[in-house]
Amino acid sequence: MLSGVSRDAPTLREDGDSIVILDQTLLPGQTAFVSLRSLDDAAHAIRVMQVRGAPLIGAIAAYGVALGLADGDADDARLAHVIDTLAATRPTAVNLHWALARMRRVLQESAPAARRELAWREARAIAEEDQAANAAIGQHGLPLIAAIHAAFGNEKDNPPSPLPAEGGGYFRQAAPATVNVMTHCNAGRLATVDHGTALAPIYAAHAAGLPVHVWVSETRPRNQGLLTAWELREAGVPHTLIADNAAGLLMMQGRVDLVIVGADRIAANGDSANKVGTYLKALAARANGVPFYVAAPLSTIDFACPTGADIPIEERAAEELGAGTTPVANPAFDVTPATLIDGIVSERGVAPAGKLMRWKS
Amino acid sequence: MLSGVSRDAPTLREDGDSIVILDQTLLPGQTAFVSLRSLDDAAHAIRVMQVRGAPLIGAIAAYGVALGLADGDADDARLAHVIDTLAATRPTAVNLHWALARMRRVLQESAPAARRELAWREARAIAEEDQAANAAIGQHGLPLIAAIHAAFGNEKDNPPSPLPAEGGGYFRQAAPATVNVMTHCNAGRLATVDHGTALAPIYAAHAAGLPVHVWVSETRPRNQGLLTAWELREAGVPHTLIADNAAGLLMMQGRVDLVIVGADRIAANGDSANKVGTYLKALAARANGVPFYVAAPLSTIDFACPTGADIPIEERAAEELGAGTTPVANPAFDVTPATLIDGIVSERGVAPAGKLMRWKS
Repeated sequence: MLSGVSRDAPTLREDGDSIVILDQTLLPGQTAFVSLRSLDDAAHAIRVMQVRGAPLIGAIAAYGVALGLADGDADDARLAHVIDTLAATRPTAVNLHWALARMRRVLQESAPAARRELAWREARAIAEEDQAANAAIGQHGLPLIAAIHAAFGNEKDNPPSPLPAEGGGYFRQAAPATVNVMTHCNAGRLATVDHGTALAPIYAAHAAGLPVHVWVSETRPRNQGLLTAWELREAGVPHTLIADNAAGLLMMQGRVDLVIVGADRIAANGDSANKVGTYLKALAARANGVPFYVAAPLSTIDFACPTGADIPIEERAAEELGAGTTPVANPAFDVTPATLIDGIVSERGVAPAGKLMRWKS
Repeated sequence: MLSGVSRDAPTLREDGDSIVILDQTLLPGQTAFVSLRSLDDAAHAIRVMQVRGAPLIGAIAAYGVALGLADGDADDARLAHVIDTLAATRPTAVNLHWALARMRRVLQESAPAARRELAWREARAIAEEDQAANAAIGQHGLPLIAAIHAAFGNEKDNPPSPLPAEGGGYFRQAAPATVNVMTHCNAGRLATVDHGTALAPIYAAHAAGLPVHVWVSETRPRNQGLLTAWELREAGVPHTLIADNAAGLLMMQGRVDLVIVGADRIAANGDSANKVGTYLKALAARANGVPFYVAAPLSTIDFACPTGADIPIEERAAEELGAGTTPVANPAFDVTPATLIDGIVSERGVAPAGKLMRWKS
């Protein structure tokens, strides 16, 4: 079913009447796969983040409906239970609700006896469409990188830093006109069925032979930056890991040409919820004249949600900060106002963040 | 020698012809003390961050000169070697160089035979002055907290959040009119001989009976936020640990009344180098109308350094991010422009960041 950049560790594949997922809680140390055979398996995988990333969560939820109907009855009551169970796993990513609403719409119309096969078919369609959407995001985002490369194509080197680093050398001397892209969290192929969202333009640029280097922020508290480093290494894309705290300094030093992040939910006005810390990068990008883009499939846009203030922010367990008995607050997402976003890249193209309503079909 | 808030685990005390330090690399898990008996001991303690925090580094360096002269000859050549060795330990904190310049000035004027005793006396003076300066910072910073408390003193509760958290409750319902102060890294008593810099006004407010709660950011990659949580707990000051990434969201939600951070070097124009990540907090504070203050003794102001662009930024080892073979960039500090700073709190008072030259004596 899958191709793209996934190679031999796809995030998701079908296997008879189960699906097999890459267990992302074990990465980057261990590449292990888990079979999901039931509704509970699917809900658990989403909740404990064996699968994460808004688009992938949507696809797994769709398959979760198929597993849930195979797992028990396929009548209306069971369908409602299955959908409610999956909807309750995580609050912020809207793709989850989008995928479940689509499954409900398709399945409600059909007789219970036909639902099992139909659910598998629709889940497969959602997964394949995600893959295609992300490939298109890559192609639509590629010109952002190509334009920067073209602008600085005659440079022998990167522009001199206004804040020289003591001892020098921590900035790996990039090849002439390398485009330095910063991202946050993992919005790569691991966050999707394939290709990624924020990383899709980077993979497209790399495939097109453009010299690109990625600043990967660690993404505390769950360190999903290590997932990004892992998949970039697999794909042969040069990258450097930084503490989240270092993002502002690098931008001030002129060492970042472009920021591209993913999104978990985009409000109708363009305000975008993404992994906590994204907003700080957007502020630093604006303050330093660095373009800031959000890449996400249309399924991430919640046209029913007027502004970022209406997006629920998931609070996760204190244990994620591993600080013993110290009181902890651990919001998993933040909201970047549309005013700080230079454009939203979807499978339809690149739109100003304030003009998303024109994509409402 | 010490009093203040240190209680039974002072950062520094004299013990015969050695000094005893609290080994901060073992906190918060273990409260252990190390004797420094030689120049090498002192240089090592600074380099590996058994002691850290700009003011404390200055005091330890001063004692390091005393240890270095006791340790070998006390002639001009030895004095120069001792000072050069200590000066090379860490590049960003200017208090280190300030303390060494002061020791050199005092010792050069005296005969070698008198230098050993003089070095101890001067180091002791530097330590005692640091303690006094920080106590004064606390008193000068206290009105910033008191004013916020007075402004909201009639509130039954904190202002409603514009971005309600899903599930609610992660924001511990503060007592009426609690002042929520955010800090970064550790600029507490552990970073100084006593009292702290950024935390000094908080300790003063707590001692004055004002209800204050501190948002403590983890401070990757070395997690000095855990030191701050440790000392706040010891002092009985309510606090909540957050990932560095959460700072922007909390400010957007109206849950931060004031930001106070320390500094490792303040340029003559008010640009302030502090632990990496400080700049991101300053940007978020400005974007959300939250006052942002830097607290530091005058010894942190480098009048010879015109702007932040002239401050060397220390690059530390990749291992601090613990990411195996992944390429890493690990700058330890960043620079917050004076334009984002609402005031600098020193032992002299609170000055606009752009007016520091008036403190040049």
